[in-house]
Amino acid sequence: MAQKVFLTNIELDEAVKLYISKLGNLESQKEIINTIDSRSRVVSSPVYSKISSPFYNSSAMDGIATLSSKTFKASDRNQIELIEGKDYLVVDTGDPIPKEYDSVIMVEDLIKISKDKVLIYKSAAPWQNIRPLGEDIVEGQLIIPSKHTIRPVDIGAMLAGGVNEIEVYKRPVIGIIPTGTEIVEPKTDLKVGDIIEFNSRVFSSMIEEWGGIPRRYNIVKDDYELIKKAALKAIEECDMVLINAGSSAGREDYTYEIIKELGSVDIHGIAIKPGKPAILGSIKEKPIVGIPGFPVSAYFIMENICKKVIKGFLGIQSEEIKIIQATLSRRVMSSLKYLEFVRVKLGYVGDKIIATPLNRGAGATMSLVNADGVLEIPQNIEGIEAGSKVNIKLLKTEEHIRNTIVCIGSHDPIIDTAADLLHLKTSKYFLSSAHVGSMGGIMALKSGEAHIAPIHLLDMEGGEYNISYIKKYLGDKNIAIIKGVNRIQGIMVLKDNPLNLKSLQDIVSKKVRFINRQRGSGTRLFLDYNIKKLNINSKDISGYDREEYTHLSIAAAVAAKDADCGLGIYSAAKLMGLDFIPLGNEEYDFAVPKEFLNSDSIKEFIEVIKSEGFKNELDKLGGYDYSNIGKIVNI
Amino acid sequence: MAQKVFLTNIELDEAVKLYISKLGNLESQKEIINTIDSRSRVVSSPVYSKISSPFYNSSAMDGIATLSSKTFKASDRNQIELIEGKDYLVVDTGDPIPKEYDSVIMVEDLIKISKDKVLIYKSAAPWQNIRPLGEDIVEGQLIIPSKHTIRPVDIGAMLAGGVNEIEVYKRPVIGIIPTGTEIVEPKTDLKVGDIIEFNSRVFSSMIEEWGGIPRRYNIVKDDYELIKKAALKAIEECDMVLINAGSSAGREDYTYEIIKELGSVDIHGIAIKPGKPAILGSIKEKPIVGIPGFPVSAYFIMENICKKVIKGFLGIQSEEIKIIQATLSRRVMSSLKYLEFVRVKLGYVGDKIIATPLNRGAGATMSLVNADGVLEIPQNIEGIEAGSKVNIKLLKTEEHIRNTIVCIGSHDPIIDTAADLLHLKTSKYFLSSAHVGSMGGIMALKSGEAHIAPIHLLDMEGGEYNISYIKKYLGDKNIAIIKGVNRIQGIMVLKDNPLNLKSLQDIVSKKVRFINRQRGSGTRLFLDYNIKKLNINSKDISGYDREEYTHLSIAAAVAAKDADCGLGIYSAAKLMGLDFIPLGNEEYDFAVPKEFLNSDSIKEFIEVIKSEGFKNELDKLGGYDYSNIGKIVNI
Repeated sequence: MAQKVFLTNIELDEAVKLYISKLGNLESQKEIINTIDSRSRVVSSPVYSKISSPFYNSSAMDGIATLSSKTFKASDRNQIELIEGKDYLVVDTGDPIPKEYDSVIMVEDLIKISKDKVLIYKSAAPWQNIRPLGEDIVEGQLIIPSKHTIRPVDIGAMLAGGVNEIEVYKRPVIGIIPTGTEIVEPKTDLKVGDIIEFNSRVFSSMIEEWGGIPRRYNIVKDDYELIKKAALKAIEECDMVLINAGSSAGREDYTYEIIKELGSVDIHGIAIKPGKPAILGSIKEKPIVGIPGFPVSAYFIMENICKKVIKGFLGIQSEEIKIIQATLSRRVMSSLKYLEFVRVKLGYVGDKIIATPLNRGAGATMSLVNADGVLEIPQNIEGIEAGSKVNIKLLKTEEHIRNTIVCIGSHDPIIDTAADLLHLKTSKYFLSSAHVGSMGGIMALKSGEAHIAPIHLLDMEGGEYNISYIKKYLGDKNIAIIKGVNRIQGIMVLKDNPLNLKSLQDIVSKKVRFINRQRGSGTRLFLDYNIKKLNINSKDISGYDREEYTHLSIAAAVAAKDADCGLGIYSAAKLMGLDFIPLGNEEYDFAVPKEFLNSDSIKEFIEVIKSEGFKNELDKLGGYDYSNIGKIVNI
Repeated sequence: MAQKVFLTNIELDEAVKLYISKLGNLESQKEIINTIDSRSRVVSSPVYSKISSPFYNSSAMDGIATLSSKTFKASDRNQIELIEGKDYLVVDTGDPIPKEYDSVIMVEDLIKISKDKVLIYKSAAPWQNIRPLGEDIVEGQLIIPSKHTIRPVDIGAMLAGGVNEIEVYKRPVIGIIPTGTEIVEPKTDLKVGDIIEFNSRVFSSMIEEWGGIPRRYNIVKDDYELIKKAALKAIEECDMVLINAGSSAGREDYTYEIIKELGSVDIHGIAIKPGKPAILGSIKEKPIVGIPGFPVSAYFIMENICKKVIKGFLGIQSEEIKIIQATLSRRVMSSLKYLEFVRVKLGYVGDKIIATPLNRGAGATMSLVNADGVLEIPQNIEGIEAGSKVNIKLLKTEEHIRNTIVCIGSHDPIIDTAADLLHLKTSKYFLSSAHVGSMGGIMALKSGEAHIAPIHLLDMEGGEYNISYIKKYLGDKNIAIIKGVNRIQGIMVLKDNPLNLKSLQDIVSKKVRFINRQRGSGTRLFLDYNIKKLNINSKDISGYDREEYTHLSIAAAVAAKDADCGLGIYSAAKLMGLDFIPLGNEEYDFAVPKEFLNSDSIKEFIEVIKSEGFKNELDKLGGYDYSNIGKIVNI
């Protein structure tokens, strides 16, 4: 268990600057390619036209080429006859104009009188309807400057200018070595302890997006000599090498030692979170980077460091970062030691863009999928208060965000179904959901973070659902309810109920391991309401304090025998192949500020949940009564 | 010369709507692909996770897994000894936690006392430092909805969720048939009358960008039966077919008749400019589009119609169009009959974004290369006044535009060189130039359209350069001059001067064909100044009224024997292999509002023109004296 200490805790900008300057001129070798195959390539020298376009005087119209001096006296009352071959030549658009002619009369202005004779009734000016040589492109003219990334229209102009081959930067080959004894290729027969290797696949497709060529090597076990051999081979074959995992300070992390032995480590440890244990070095003057194993850490190292190196091979320094200003919905704490990358969801709620922080764990791949943007909290700042204006680096388009319904509240699988059907139906609107429980949803509406909040809040006094909570907490807001479903809550247990649980009392009397939903969730309230009625003390439930955030998490824990039972809805139990002991019905509805009821997106959402397609999906999930779905209840 | 009349002049939006609805459900067939190869593909059904991630409880730290109840009494003063195998298991991040343990203590909190014993001095809470099963992804959870376009991070989440294969829309195959007897493949031995075929190459790379697979067929001559045969073959092999050219009303345009014979023409003639002669039809229920031959027309038909059909195959309807508001620098006239697409240059000049219209010819491929955006002028509007606020569809990024020096004025090849070196040096700044002559440059500064204006304006009275014009026309602005070059103006003639011209008088006395620069250009003033001194009447110069806009255009016309001589600078003559009769020196400088002198981009520009690299390029071009280059002269 010999531990290594990170060499430095260097700031990101400084680390990148140091590393890039240490690497020196990265620009790739140049190669000549056919212009027709050059889309998205970067030219390494300016492209000048080799010929003019058009390279001869040509007709701009369908008509006849003639000599203007022969037409000067033409008028309605003095129509002039012209004879083909002698006075004119029939030309189509693009045809060359012979030297003896200086003008084109368009076909619409001709009166055809025989096979080879026309009358004209207007004079023609010299050079009329003629595209002069070089009108579009003049020989020797700059078409695109160095380091320009080629677009389709550039290909057209280069070919028009006689440039059939161009010099571009070679695409750099980036080697990727996944390491780890516990790492396995994606497969179906996984066993406990296996970790699916997917970082290299994410890196590969990022590298392709940035214009490089990924070369992914096979997984290497945690063995110093094996990793060293793989690194040496990759350094020979590639322009840059990434070694994944093995850069934290774990027992079996050899990347640091290997890079030090074969070349030099320039930086180990960067003051960012996630991503700090990255290693930046070089072997044989080629960059080699040790990338942390946690997917989110890996992502930020790729995006903030490797991207700049790879773009450097292509001679590209600047890149567009789309930034928008948003209002932070909650306070975010941050470490003084690190620049912190916080993934956020964004929503146009009313006239404000609201940024809501997502799960900050370095292993949370879904936080990257769901993130709309990244909030960077600088080092030496302890946190940012709710309501602050913050700059967000966008990960999705503004239009995407504008067309997204922000749904914050209680979790139910039907939310995923509604999200999918909404986008399938409209191809325009998205529904993004955060699962923070019913009370979390109420609070999100209160602070203007959400468009809708799915809730199932049981009034402990009256036994009524939802309305009393809205009145109590959102009395100052003008809220309506879109009716959702009645769903069955119950106890989830393993298939065939091996412990033979039949009621909430059994959980106490049989001393089984329970797993609970978080405070503020409707299911927690449902439990508390029912144990209160039964005079059960929560302290007598083993695991009452162990909290999960979704029905599916509870079901997954039970399925994995990690707990013996938990409370949740029928559809989640069914999805996980569990048995289910029904305890009662509850009303799962959508609270919505009335002002949003007339927005197109919410109208489409209501259409979707009222649709036959949606009801069919509910039937497949099971355990839902949707007789009132989509009805609006004013409060 | 049998002429066809366009069937309709239907509005663009209506045409697209009609055509798409006529085509019916376009969605491609679906196919199963490996998740690891799915970047940029569009999923045809929602992707749900097949396993949880992690799919077992795992350690979130390097350290030891232990049972929390054994640690409860640990403190600084009551250190507890734990024994490996009995009390704990050494775990690394990601390792599974065996059922008998419920807590992880991180390595930093352990005091190692022997090979298999540690002391702890803090208690461990249950589930501390454990990533519970499903923390990131729960089995059955929606990862991405239908019709989502896959990004690198999605690949990671899908693999983590056990999804190794996904269903996506097949990429549609789009056939492209270039037609025309005069059309030739890009090559070097061109002859007069040849038209280089490049539209199909532009289409191909647009189709690739949009997610389709282009299949480009060989050029087909203008022959009804040959084109018909090609169309039938392509319709068999592809999902959609584009026939290029042959959609105007020229003599040899068969596309309309062929589509009508083999299938149906839905729309012929759309109320847009450029692009009106497009033909939208179908054969065997597959879309077939006749695309006009002019490159700019073709571009707008591709962008506004074909793109929507191709995206339709992929189930994508919405797309982001970036729009910015700009101030129109000049009045633009427009036809009442058409929706008109006007390519514009954009510049951040001061705090405004200025939109300046570019060459509107349908053949102007360079206008597409140079355009920063497109101004759409609706049908039934005659024009838009200078100073109006207009919405511009962006073709480049806002950052690109923000980093662009707008240079409007007189043309010299050194502007291209400076543009290239500026970008090469900084990788950030761009210089975009419009060639409208020196007076055009003065006017651009006056109306705030440009950052700098290259000018060489000879005072007809004093014989002094530039300063008097700035005082006269820009007296109310605070203008400085960045000194440029002294350059030699003279007469350009064919190699070896076959007509033996020696002076301006010879142009008159030998009655040779002259080609002139446009009014307002410095070269025109230079000519006028000199013929006035020589008492030559401009009417005696044959071709005095034939105007071109650049030195290179003049040189190209002389090189093509399209004129016998013209006035211009030495470097242009040299580029075109012409002989040159020097007439005198002139000062070619850059006028610039003083407020811009301190901007980073202009400072970099000055650095560039003062650099040795730039001077070397000037030496290569020849005919420049750069002893004062880069000096600032206050006026």
